[in-house]
Amino acid sequence: MSSKSPSVQALKWTGQELDVLDQRLLPEQMIYNRYSDALSVADAIKTMQVRGAPAIGIAAAYAVVLSAQQHYAESESLWRDKVEADIKILAQSRPTAVNLFWALGLMQQLLSQISANPLPEIKALAEKIHADDIAANYKMGELGAALLADSVGVLTHCNAGALATGGYGTALGVIRSACQRGLNKVYAGETRPWLQGARLTVWELAQDDISATLIADSAAAYLMASKAIDWIVVGADRIAANGDVANKIGTYSLAVLAKYHGVKLMVAAPTSTIDWDIDSGQQIEIEQRGENELLAECYQEQGLIQAWNPVFDVTPAHLIAAIVTERGVVLNPAEQGMRSLLC
Amino acid sequence: MSSKSPSVQALKWTGQELDVLDQRLLPEQMIYNRYSDALSVADAIKTMQVRGAPAIGIAAAYAVVLSAQQHYAESESLWRDKVEADIKILAQSRPTAVNLFWALGLMQQLLSQISANPLPEIKALAEKIHADDIAANYKMGELGAALLADSVGVLTHCNAGALATGGYGTALGVIRSACQRGLNKVYAGETRPWLQGARLTVWELAQDDISATLIADSAAAYLMASKAIDWIVVGADRIAANGDVANKIGTYSLAVLAKYHGVKLMVAAPTSTIDWDIDSGQQIEIEQRGENELLAECYQEQGLIQAWNPVFDVTPAHLIAAIVTERGVVLNPAEQGMRSLLC
Repeated sequence: MSSKSPSVQALKWTGQELDVLDQRLLPEQMIYNRYSDALSVADAIKTMQVRGAPAIGIAAAYAVVLSAQQHYAESESLWRDKVEADIKILAQSRPTAVNLFWALGLMQQLLSQISANPLPEIKALAEKIHADDIAANYKMGELGAALLADSVGVLTHCNAGALATGGYGTALGVIRSACQRGLNKVYAGETRPWLQGARLTVWELAQDDISATLIADSAAAYLMASKAIDWIVVGADRIAANGDVANKIGTYSLAVLAKYHGVKLMVAAPTSTIDWDIDSGQQIEIEQRGENELLAECYQEQGLIQAWNPVFDVTPAHLIAAIVTERGVVLNPAEQGMRSLLC
Repeated sequence: MSSKSPSVQALKWTGQELDVLDQRLLPEQMIYNRYSDALSVADAIKTMQVRGAPAIGIAAAYAVVLSAQQHYAESESLWRDKVEADIKILAQSRPTAVNLFWALGLMQQLLSQISANPLPEIKALAEKIHADDIAANYKMGELGAALLADSVGVLTHCNAGALATGGYGTALGVIRSACQRGLNKVYAGETRPWLQGARLTVWELAQDDISATLIADSAAAYLMASKAIDWIVVGADRIAANGDVANKIGTYSLAVLAKYHGVKLMVAAPTSTIDWDIDSGQQIEIEQRGENELLAECYQEQGLIQAWNPVFDVTPAHLIAAIVTERGVVLNPAEQGMRSLLC
């Protein structure tokens, strides 16, 4: 695995503290902030120092460890309520990524079974969530790359890379594995308003000596019409049981454009991204972020100028050719949803 | 007409010199640069101080006046060659907008008929090109607004406004007229990479007390799926005889998305935008601008990171519901192209 290790990590666990790469400063500066309490991590998630559904889940798991560490040291009898309160705050840090709730749920379940010092066991669980995520990404990389065997070019959107996960990446894991097998044309959409594609994806790929070409999001249709790509590969923030996928704003746009141009759409995401409790994507809450992410400062006193800033959208399953998970590939998810993964 | 006069002008002709609003500084600063020679105007076009197909044409017409003024003052016998040389340079300032070549062609034709002092007549022609453009925009405004009679909401892209024309605007002229008749929901796409929608369109509309909501370009599909709009209204940089339209990158993307969602696409452009010499949009040269418009500065030494930056795309006629010109409306241009306007 060492030859394939990605050069960059969003999260580094010291065994006692969590180092979070402040992705808002990339690509100009690479600075890790060290956190030793859960609320600071919740704030790091909310302010998008760390982003990407799997990375958010892992950060939240470590945050629960930090919470238990802090509150168990303060009181061996009263720590449990304080950890529960921290978990509530962590759960409110971002609304769309289901991995956040999934990781918090696993931590809570384990905590409810422990009566003595919780630290050894919950530390081990958080570390396992992190390691499992990386392993899942390598597995998805292999499965997804097999589908891209004859691809002339691939477009990705946002950053579903090492920076968005425990390491290696979901969509970028697939692209990394495909590049090892011969894929040599990778495009990345800028991904307004946060420019994750421009600031993170092309930077992250360059760290691994993978060349990528940046495009304005609105140039994707022209790119497809020019036959430069035959696949689009993206990650997911939440997948409904029927195969509908919530992902970064613009994914639905790419999905419609892909269908029109005969380009195929692949979603790569670990099964922790699947929300089995919802039947369809219509039940997914879409986060709306502040107008200031789109509006010039001089507009902010100007009542006539508004902004609409949904940061995710939902792509219906019928526009998706394949959903790649660590448990296997679901081809044409519109046919049977995600249920084949339960077998 | 006075009650409808737009508050902002891209170009102001003093009678001797041309004042060009430096649109690169908007919305923060409103600064006019005064030019008295043609090559400075060519540079203002090239560097996008002035942009928008009709405005480029008008600026070029005035630049020919400035050229003749300068060179006729220098030599009453040798001025003609120098003006021709300036016209060649003006013609190279931007490749896509046909209005540039159209306006230069009109000026050249007149010059070829004049043997004495050319100034009175060519000044009058440039002023007429400017005045005719404004009148055409008011006419298109009325024709386009009639089509939007029951619209629940309209999206526009880039800036096809007063700032892109002699005044009032093409797409924004239609939207201005529609708002006078009751339209009350206007959306504008940011329009990467230059952000003409964010920097110019919502600002320009606010100057006229029209409220607008800015969206990321990639949010347009979700906006359409949410049924917030039923029309998209854009300008054009060049229209082929068959009704194919070259316009700002992203227009083709919106056209495909509109077709999928049952939203209609209107193109508003004066007949000077029609290139009768080309049968289809495939013959239109698409300007590629520098990678630095998309890439962070720290990438520019980094050979692995490239950018693809076409700034226009071509929308085939079959995706367009109506092309509105000052000579009338072409409904479903795919049926017969633009030829009905020749009758």
